[in-house]
Amino acid sequence: MVSPIDIAKRVVLGRPFRSDRLGETLLPKRLALPIFASDPLSSVAYATQEILLILTLGGLSYLYLTPWVAGGVVVLLAVVAVSYRQVVKAYPSGGGSYEVVAENLGPIPGLVVAAALLVDYVMTVAVSVAAGVDNIISAVPDLNPHRVLIDIGFIVALTAMNLRGVRESGRAFAVPTYGFVVGVLAMVAIGSGQALLGHAPVAESAHYEIHAEHVGLSAAAVAFLALRAFSSGCTALTGAEAISNGVPAFRKPKALNAARTMTAMGVIAITMFSGVTALAMISHTKVTENTCDLVGFPGDCRTDAQRTVIAQIAAAVFGSSSIAFYYLTVTTALILILAANTAYNGFPLLNSILAQDRYMPRQLHTRGDRLAYSNGIILLAVVAAGLIYAFDGQTTRLIQLYIVGVFTSFTLCQTGMVRHWNRELRSATTAAQRLRIHRGRLINAFGACFTGVVLVVVMITKFSHGAYLVVIAMPLLVLVMYLIHRHYTKVRAELDIDPDDTPTLPGRVHAIVLVSGWHKATQRAVQFARATRPDTITAITVNVDDPETRALAQDWERQDVAISLKVIESPYREITRPVIDYIKRVRQSRPRDVVSVYIPEYVVGHWWENLLHNQSSLRLKARLLFEPSVMVTSVPYQLRSSRTRDPSKIAHSPGEIRRGIIGPN
Amino acid sequence: MVSPIDIAKRVVLGRPFRSDRLGETLLPKRLALPIFASDPLSSVAYATQEILLILTLGGLSYLYLTPWVAGGVVVLLAVVAVSYRQVVKAYPSGGGSYEVVAENLGPIPGLVVAAALLVDYVMTVAVSVAAGVDNIISAVPDLNPHRVLIDIGFIVALTAMNLRGVRESGRAFAVPTYGFVVGVLAMVAIGSGQALLGHAPVAESAHYEIHAEHVGLSAAAVAFLALRAFSSGCTALTGAEAISNGVPAFRKPKALNAARTMTAMGVIAITMFSGVTALAMISHTKVTENTCDLVGFPGDCRTDAQRTVIAQIAAAVFGSSSIAFYYLTVTTALILILAANTAYNGFPLLNSILAQDRYMPRQLHTRGDRLAYSNGIILLAVVAAGLIYAFDGQTTRLIQLYIVGVFTSFTLCQTGMVRHWNRELRSATTAAQRLRIHRGRLINAFGACFTGVVLVVVMITKFSHGAYLVVIAMPLLVLVMYLIHRHYTKVRAELDIDPDDTPTLPGRVHAIVLVSGWHKATQRAVQFARATRPDTITAITVNVDDPETRALAQDWERQDVAISLKVIESPYREITRPVIDYIKRVRQSRPRDVVSVYIPEYVVGHWWENLLHNQSSLRLKARLLFEPSVMVTSVPYQLRSSRTRDPSKIAHSPGEIRRGIIGPN
Repeated sequence: MVSPIDIAKRVVLGRPFRSDRLGETLLPKRLALPIFASDPLSSVAYATQEILLILTLGGLSYLYLTPWVAGGVVVLLAVVAVSYRQVVKAYPSGGGSYEVVAENLGPIPGLVVAAALLVDYVMTVAVSVAAGVDNIISAVPDLNPHRVLIDIGFIVALTAMNLRGVRESGRAFAVPTYGFVVGVLAMVAIGSGQALLGHAPVAESAHYEIHAEHVGLSAAAVAFLALRAFSSGCTALTGAEAISNGVPAFRKPKALNAARTMTAMGVIAITMFSGVTALAMISHTKVTENTCDLVGFPGDCRTDAQRTVIAQIAAAVFGSSSIAFYYLTVTTALILILAANTAYNGFPLLNSILAQDRYMPRQLHTRGDRLAYSNGIILLAVVAAGLIYAFDGQTTRLIQLYIVGVFTSFTLCQTGMVRHWNRELRSATTAAQRLRIHRGRLINAFGACFTGVVLVVVMITKFSHGAYLVVIAMPLLVLVMYLIHRHYTKVRAELDIDPDDTPTLPGRVHAIVLVSGWHKATQRAVQFARATRPDTITAITVNVDDPETRALAQDWERQDVAISLKVIESPYREITRPVIDYIKRVRQSRPRDVVSVYIPEYVVGHWWENLLHNQSSLRLKARLLFEPSVMVTSVPYQLRSSRTRDPSKIAHSPGEIRRGIIGPN
Repeated sequence: MVSPIDIAKRVVLGRPFRSDRLGETLLPKRLALPIFASDPLSSVAYATQEILLILTLGGLSYLYLTPWVAGGVVVLLAVVAVSYRQVVKAYPSGGGSYEVVAENLGPIPGLVVAAALLVDYVMTVAVSVAAGVDNIISAVPDLNPHRVLIDIGFIVALTAMNLRGVRESGRAFAVPTYGFVVGVLAMVAIGSGQALLGHAPVAESAHYEIHAEHVGLSAAAVAFLALRAFSSGCTALTGAEAISNGVPAFRKPKALNAARTMTAMGVIAITMFSGVTALAMISHTKVTENTCDLVGFPGDCRTDAQRTVIAQIAAAVFGSSSIAFYYLTVTTALILILAANTAYNGFPLLNSILAQDRYMPRQLHTRGDRLAYSNGIILLAVVAAGLIYAFDGQTTRLIQLYIVGVFTSFTLCQTGMVRHWNRELRSATTAAQRLRIHRGRLINAFGACFTGVVLVVVMITKFSHGAYLVVIAMPLLVLVMYLIHRHYTKVRAELDIDPDDTPTLPGRVHAIVLVSGWHKATQRAVQFARATRPDTITAITVNVDDPETRALAQDWERQDVAISLKVIESPYREITRPVIDYIKRVRQSRPRDVVSVYIPEYVVGHWWENLLHNQSSLRLKARLLFEPSVMVTSVPYQLRSSRTRDPSKIAHSPGEIRRGIIGPN
């Protein structure tokens, strides 16, 4: 029935994996680093740029604040990395911030963190892909008009890769990530060397001036500007918690390997971010929100894009037509696009955990046939592509939505960890244990305070620039998850069987065959109904058209059908209501019995043929489900067109294109 | 389950009608005229304008062709009216052109006419509503920016009126139609009187000049211009066949009453069209396709609309702020919008006839609970609104799509009538009969030739201006109807029971209960399955998650369920395939037996709750229908939320808001 889709699915995804292959897909550190740390590492590509962008809003003279702002970001990075090492060690099961908060602060804060993380994962995909395409456009400016299309193309490609399963993704991501790290570190080293030797690199934008420069801001305004720049620089922190959510994907010893990967990530990120920011200052790189504000910009200010900061630095250090320049823009673009992959790992995993806790629909719980969480992956791709479309693929506008969620989860997670250590302390016995716990608590308490302050700063400075959307979306998500949970809990309570309660067994069975005409499908339904040997059996038909009903009654008599046909009048030409009323009457006279309704159905081969049949029986079946003590039996009659398209034919042919389903829900 | 929709439906539509009330809704002539003739009568409002528009393309100097072109249209109107009198008398059953052609020329020409008529009905709605709103904007120019919105608002209102049933429509339409006729005739009389008395009315556009005037067209070009103007003027003919499709809605003697109404319509239409065209010439009214071509146009040529010709004439005769001017623009707008109602009567009726002949889906055959063909009405409204949206509500652009279909059906219908008379002639016995037949054949032959020539002219002159869309759409429609017919015929042949063929009765019944967990829904399914006393009974579960399956097996043992539980392994975490494979194995060992699959289902109250449940059972049920000798039984378990929303509760409450369905398909 869905064979072409199945074939396409197999071509894109490869053959399905057996559940017992799950162990094989675990990751060694050298592959885990590129998968989980590509997000924080890639942030280097835009964090410096966002700081410069904001400071330039005040005028070029405020670029002197850059090192202070960047210094704040570096300190924050170190604090977060150290704090999350504690999380990874204490919670190796991969729930990450969600598990920490739900366990230590209760379910509602847990849901808040879950909402924050879900928003973040989506934003990671949107921002990383948009920023990656910015770098591609830096190298090939002619692509600028097709920005959104390229963005969405990359999302589709990433989605396909991830539906194929985790292991293969790891390999595909290792090369560009390490390539980017090596490239940036080489650029920093060479650029610094040039500066030390007296011929410092000069950016193409070094001579630009800015229209409408503000001078003489008040001290408070300068402080606000610095804080706003700091908030933007905090994008460097995004994704730092991905490792803590992905611990189960590490090889054993999982926690230790994850903690070491966290440290490596922190050191590399800090080195790269500091180096790029220093080079940006040395080479006098400039960027603005709008190229029309730039005096000296060579292109058409309304249609041409500026180069990214990292592309400008690479051009200044290596020359803008050198191989090294293209190497750097390409690896930057690649790592950014692959950074989105962090979310493709984290988002479905978190959804699966939430589904297990009954906060999300069951469909998100189970892995697809390639052992990836297919439904979650598709959901993520659709929402992220929608955001890119809505915001026209503009990185700076998307980033405004990004940071609130990140710091909400940081702050709650660190607070949860403090609670965790307090509890541990009670059960600690040796002095060494106590010392370890005290140390951990100190680190997390400091992390909680620091990230809490940053959260407040981000909220204040970003609110009107787009963060308000996240402030609306997060409580909504929490509400939806809460309602889903309440529903599942209610249903489970209702369905629970009280062992002391022996239910009354149903009495006799009354079969009713619905008839619309005398043909093979009806004949089969009558035969099948009789084969079940019910206590009583009746055929009924609804009279909506007198001549048709008379013809049916004559056919019935002529064919000498074994059971009698009862005609139900329907003055308002309805089908459903008279049938329901008839069944109600049958049930009223025998309340302990069961009514079994047999509905003949044609089975056709094409979906459009279905539009031509069975419309009234579909409606009737849906309605009959509401009647207590009624069961509804479809008796299918397979028309020839359905038999040639029988999906089992495809399934049983050798060569094995198997029919799969996305998640066994 | 759908109670709020039902309530809304009753508020909009009123209470349902019983089938035996159908007789009461028949129409006297004085109501039939406004309903069926509002389309051809209302064409007067734009036919003159379309002629002037085309002639002006050649330059103002070619307006001298107006009386010749208009004369051609008047002759055509007379020919068509007389020809269709013959149709009404010969075919009183209301199939109109479709019945005539299908019966006399065969099913494929019949389908071509049906396609042409379906296209025309849609165009009638789109063009009439757009032209009506043009006249409203002539009176209230500020509404111009909201044109499309107003158009669609009127379509929605018309749809609601028609879903309420024919009879009430008739009354609502009588007043504006007669009001329009009286108004136009009064305007023609007064305007002519003014001209005779020497102070002829002068249109506001009399002094306009046209940019880029062409001079010195070749004779051939002038002829082509005249033919194109004639083609546009033929819009006056649209809808002339509506009466022939609506004969069954007339009071008895149906054919005679319909023929008389046809004559009245022809006389009134010719008088009005001639009068308006004469006044347009007397008052020197001018219109162009684009106001930017007009020298002297007082508004902004890109955003302001010209007044319609009929509004300009009314302003010239009565003064542009007189009550008479507003009366005329309002009745013109009203009759145009109500003219769309012709299609609301014809389109669903034709669809119903086509559905009866199995060329259209069954859903279009039966009347809704207000005795109107609800599905056809909704279909018409949706397509017409889509066209208006696509063409920005511009009457002139829509009209290009209109006329090809009209003349296709005219020509084929008249040709069919000639065939009809030839056949009649063979069985005629008396001289009087022969005379009558010869006369009829002469009229229809003349009509066929005349309309055939016009069809060719219209095709040539309109093709590149939009008519090509119709030339594509009509064969597509024919193809779809043909495929639907082939499908229904094939199904019917397959389902037909050969009386000599006694089918082998099924042997034993094997019950299989699908289990996903041990709870009340499962318990009920097991009980119901046992109540049917099958020959064998097994419970099966698919193992997609080891711990869950183990827990289920333990529950099963602890509860001491009467039947045994069989665990099916599913290494690829699928549900559907392992179940199907299991059933196939059961059937292979006992090919003459029947397998009865019992599926426990939760019934929830809200549609969104359904998203959280039953997803895998829905898929499984759909797939099971393809297995021969398998019946699928849903055993519903009504959760509390579904019981409070049980639709029967609403239905049985006094005060009677009844649950209805749109067409009993």
